[in-house]
Amino acid sequence: MANGQTAEIYGIAAATGQRIDPAYPVSSLADVDAACRAADAAFDVYRATDAETRAAFLEEIAVEIERLGDSLIERAATESGLPVARITGERGRTIGQLRLFAAVVRDGRWREIRIDPAMPDRQPLPRPDLRLRMVPLGPVAVFGASNFPLAFSTAGGDTAAALAAGCSVVVKGHPAHPGTDAMIAGAIGRAVSTCGLPAGVFGHVRGPGNELGSALVAHPLIAAVGFTGSRGGGLALMRLAQERPVPIPVYAEMSSINPVVLMPAALAARGADLGRAFVASLTMGAGQFCTNPGLVVAVASDGLDAFEAAAAAALAAHAPQPMLTAGIRDAYARGTAALAGNAAVTQLATGLAGDGIASENARLFATDADAFLADRALGEEVFGASSLVVRCRDAEQVRAVLAGLEGQLTATIHLDQADHDAARPLISVLERRAGRVLANGWPTGVEVAHAMVHGGPFPATSDGRSTSVGTLAIDRFLRPVCYQDLPADLLPPELTDEAGGPRLVDGHPA
Amino acid sequence: MANGQTAEIYGIAAATGQRIDPAYPVSSLADVDAACRAADAAFDVYRATDAETRAAFLEEIAVEIERLGDSLIERAATESGLPVARITGERGRTIGQLRLFAAVVRDGRWREIRIDPAMPDRQPLPRPDLRLRMVPLGPVAVFGASNFPLAFSTAGGDTAAALAAGCSVVVKGHPAHPGTDAMIAGAIGRAVSTCGLPAGVFGHVRGPGNELGSALVAHPLIAAVGFTGSRGGGLALMRLAQERPVPIPVYAEMSSINPVVLMPAALAARGADLGRAFVASLTMGAGQFCTNPGLVVAVASDGLDAFEAAAAAALAAHAPQPMLTAGIRDAYARGTAALAGNAAVTQLATGLAGDGIASENARLFATDADAFLADRALGEEVFGASSLVVRCRDAEQVRAVLAGLEGQLTATIHLDQADHDAARPLISVLERRAGRVLANGWPTGVEVAHAMVHGGPFPATSDGRSTSVGTLAIDRFLRPVCYQDLPADLLPPELTDEAGGPRLVDGHPA
Repeated sequence: MANGQTAEIYGIAAATGQRIDPAYPVSSLADVDAACRAADAAFDVYRATDAETRAAFLEEIAVEIERLGDSLIERAATESGLPVARITGERGRTIGQLRLFAAVVRDGRWREIRIDPAMPDRQPLPRPDLRLRMVPLGPVAVFGASNFPLAFSTAGGDTAAALAAGCSVVVKGHPAHPGTDAMIAGAIGRAVSTCGLPAGVFGHVRGPGNELGSALVAHPLIAAVGFTGSRGGGLALMRLAQERPVPIPVYAEMSSINPVVLMPAALAARGADLGRAFVASLTMGAGQFCTNPGLVVAVASDGLDAFEAAAAAALAAHAPQPMLTAGIRDAYARGTAALAGNAAVTQLATGLAGDGIASENARLFATDADAFLADRALGEEVFGASSLVVRCRDAEQVRAVLAGLEGQLTATIHLDQADHDAARPLISVLERRAGRVLANGWPTGVEVAHAMVHGGPFPATSDGRSTSVGTLAIDRFLRPVCYQDLPADLLPPELTDEAGGPRLVDGHPA
Repeated sequence: MANGQTAEIYGIAAATGQRIDPAYPVSSLADVDAACRAADAAFDVYRATDAETRAAFLEEIAVEIERLGDSLIERAATESGLPVARITGERGRTIGQLRLFAAVVRDGRWREIRIDPAMPDRQPLPRPDLRLRMVPLGPVAVFGASNFPLAFSTAGGDTAAALAAGCSVVVKGHPAHPGTDAMIAGAIGRAVSTCGLPAGVFGHVRGPGNELGSALVAHPLIAAVGFTGSRGGGLALMRLAQERPVPIPVYAEMSSINPVVLMPAALAARGADLGRAFVASLTMGAGQFCTNPGLVVAVASDGLDAFEAAAAAALAAHAPQPMLTAGIRDAYARGTAALAGNAAVTQLATGLAGDGIASENARLFATDADAFLADRALGEEVFGASSLVVRCRDAEQVRAVLAGLEGQLTATIHLDQADHDAARPLISVLERRAGRVLANGWPTGVEVAHAMVHGGPFPATSDGRSTSVGTLAIDRFLRPVCYQDLPADLLPPELTDEAGGPRLVDGHPA
């Protein structure tokens, strides 16, 4: 607790439950306040930096993370229980993300510059000179996520996007990986220093419980919040942010069961193959992905039987890996027990029993569409390698199941050519409910790209108008300002006639 | 009330307080529900229309409004008390806005199409084909505003932007101009029919009180809200929208005092001219503009004395026009009485007394910066032709006054060349607090253009990330969707390789 009951926290090795040295001091509420004040003071300096300075800073963070070398990989793998190969890939993604945002900053399109030149002779009234650019919102609070200790955490997507936008950042490191968090925070701090930026550009606090995070979101100098975590946590932050004297935007990624629709021709052609590939996606990283395929929807058929049989066989041979934390493991156990105990639900398979702490094996359940439509609890996320097959009577029932879903990060459809006509109206249903619609693939890979959307209608996120992955994420932390008739020497440099860079003049690319 | 206590409402002539025939039936809660259901049913059809269909629809609304001819002008002028010339200009703006959005829809840049082509041979993992477009949010609830019976009302900016984005719309017409509202709703309805669109594309309800509007915002099929009105009204809608099982975005434009900074050299050179021009802006439309200059900030000087003297003289000669409604008149009377009764405030001038219902004359007050900084009430909006001059000791105090302001729609600075160096840091302060920063002009004209921002940090609006005027407003009602590896014949037409239109491919214009 931040009030002094606990003065320090330790990392816990996910595979053993053992405490790892060293201890890390828990931040106080005074630390939160100091970090926010420093972030606000640094904001005016940082937002005024030119594109090159800001891009070089993002690249320097990437270099500093690389310099941490194998010790970062080892620490993150130990704290998270995720395999070294996965963490190594995640580091590459994190570094690549920082470099991609550096390129975005240099490109300048994010400024959305628009110029409507003066028309002094227009009748009945002259038109003033109008120039628009995007400006950063202000200091941003970022919450590290447990399930991506690098890519969605201290130097993850929200931090990279906010820094790219010109916002200073205060990170609350996730207490499940304090060592990883401290190493990354150190790397960012060194980059701040190397680049000659004010220290407050990046602030950092840590601690268990909700008190610090609540204080951060409630702090009057914080202008926006980025969060990846549970539905309960996200809803609490949304409420806090709205109850402030000055409400602020919250980008919370919360809850998604990522429906996978299996169309009849695809099932008939390759039901068993789909079943095996599905289990590979379901069990990756112990199922601890926001995009984990937690729901399978299909018309009952021989092909679906083959899918289920192959999936069950694959799952039964799957050895569990330890989950991220004891809390996540307990929640998974509760969620799967509730499904197993539901009279309308059949358990199709369980994975291998693990040894020691890796006690939670993967699970595959089935129910029918009538039961699913009658019980909202069956549509709730169980974070981990658990999924539910919903067997439908006919295509109309598939449509009804999909139409009844809450907002989702992803929606997947497996189909063959013969399925296209029947799939078309379903895609229309899915795109109203999801941020990403994918065909003949699995939702668990989220490419960091210009065209990626990792977002979606509530409750997948608190704000379906944006993405937390990909270059469009920079928009989260920007707002437009119009400058009317400003003398040229008082205009922001990028808005002058002489400045290069992409712009619309009278609505057309110049 | 919608519960049947009052079955109909009448327009009131603002200049006389007299009831105008005919009566208009008040909508019931069942009407709200029916309009929302129809809007939802129409949404899937309407969002799938091509750009030409949607653009032609917007243009047809403009034609239908033109066809209403002088009877619209007369009715709007009578209900609002605004001069015929102003209403005529506002009609032109409303029609021009619809046509500008038609051009935006045809241009296609609003779709923000991004394509990251597949890289099947990439190592260690192939990249899927990713295609992003913006899609409409869903049915939008729009609240007509009292002070712009055309441009911010039934067929105003929010309606035009939402329809352009592909959203169906349910308007709650403002009860202060039910006749104008009915004429415009009829015009839109005819355009819907002419264009062969489902009737639910445009829904309309009317009634006094808050019950209907609350039901509209709480309706599960509504996906976003546009509102222009009081701070209390906007805050209530924000709360309602957040308390829904599925929270939705609210774009409420609420409260702004639009600071005007007078720099020393400008004041010295033309203090009296500035004073007269200021009063022209202040009293336009009885001061009933969201961008009305309600605060003047300057260092005490001979130039400021000249400004005040000229402003006081101009104001003293100003004859009032009737205000929009009795409620607005009463609120103005209370607000100005509070200022007049504040011991720290001096009344510099009052306008001429009006006759009859035009009883509320313009007011100009002054105070000093110490008093202003000590009393937050002095920074609250008084809707109408009232303004407060804050006399500062020095430039540092000007800065302190500006830095202490809440979020604003606009911030204005009057300056001469000799003021530029001192103005530069003030502009930096102002752009953190306002959606539009203007030099050597007055905030009351809001150009409908590509580079306009009519928005700003809370409480100017509920969401400073957008604008309610100008073409960027279409973004309010859009969210991104990514399509991954979709077969070409299942892609939305604008996302295919063959489609024309602006797009980024791997982040670069194609």
